[in-house]
Amino acid sequence: MNWPVLAVGAALLGRAAGGAEAGEVDLTIVNVVTPQDVKIWEPTSITAKKGDRVTLRLINKHADEHGYEIAAFGVKEVVAGDKTATVTFTADKAGVFPIKCQLHPAHVVGQLTVLE
Amino acid sequence: MNWPVLAVGAALLGRAAGGAEAGEVDLTIVNVVTPQDVKIWEPTSITAKKGDRVTLRLINKHADEHGYEIAAFGVKEVVAGDKTATVTFTADKAGVFPIKCQLHPAHVVGQLTVLE
Amino acid sequence: MNWPVLAVGAALLGRAAGGAEAGEVDLTIVNVVTPQDVKIWEPTSITAKKGDRVTLRLINKHADEHGYEIAAFGVKEVVAGDKTATVTFTADKAGVFPIKCQLHPAHVVGQLTVLE
Repeated sequence: MNWPVLAVGAALLGRAAGGAEAGEVDLTIVNVVTPQDVKIWEPTSITAKKGDRVTLRLINKHADEHGYEIAAFGVKEVVAGDKTATVTFTADKAGVFPIKCQLHPAHVVGQLTVLE
Repeated sequence: MNWPVLAVGAALLGRAAGGAEAGEVDLTIVNVVTPQDVKIWEPTSITAKKGDRVTLRLINKHADEHGYEIAAFGVKEVVAGDKTATVTFTADKAGVFPIKCQLHPAHVVGQLTVLE
Repeated sequence: MNWPVLAVGAALLGRAAGGAEAGEVDLTIVNVVTPQDVKIWEPTSITAKKGDRVTLRLINKHADEHGYEIAAFGVKEVVAGDKTATVTFTADKAGVFPIKCQLHPAHVVGQLTVLE
């Protein structure tokens, strides 16, 4: 009897039951500017499950360049004004991790949550 | 001794201790338009616990109709311009599920996270 | 052999491996106003782990005073127009808890999720 193999099988079954999107997070994140001149990457926060492949399409709707950093996963992108960039990484550790704009501390972002 | 009954009792106790909101998620979600003409349903993302009854009051602050879809739970609403619609469903499976506007792919929404 | 001590050690190791931010959530939340006159605290939602110390710097970019309430944790702040306030609390129970503006029910906020 090979218990580890059984355990992996059960885990895969559990993920499949959770929905077709298990294993992959694919989001478009848009940088907007409010009438108060506050810059925000929307949606501000992201959730993934441990092991998920995360793809983020970052659309900058402002004329200036802006940053997008998830330090815990080595993401540190600069998106030029009115341009789009795509980042991908594997969410290989669970936890709650800050997302920031490394160029402007006042830029509003949020958190990446990776569930066990 | 009936262990399953004890376990269920403990689970209910745990939920009750977690706050009066256990078992129910009730949110107002507003569709706004930024000066860059980006449409966003705010808040973009929602969290529930498995088994929670979820009620979303969708307020469309734009003159055009907009969609709100959580495919994994059969939610697919169209909200007319300047109108409000309410959707309810039971979050009966855990996972991270996309929320989209089925009418406009560029419309910014986010994710529904259902915790075990 | 002292198993509980080993278990605690493993748990601490797990948190440390999860990133320097384990144990602490530190966020800036900005109140913005959309062209449709919708007020939103951004980011709308927050995630913490049970036991985390949460610090929220609330920046009100509107001329009027606004509230920020997480009733489950005794947070009930009023931030004067164009001012900043800071609240701190310990996320000592797991669950999904509403965040509201206690002064204006239409003000858009979201949820505090505290993971086990």
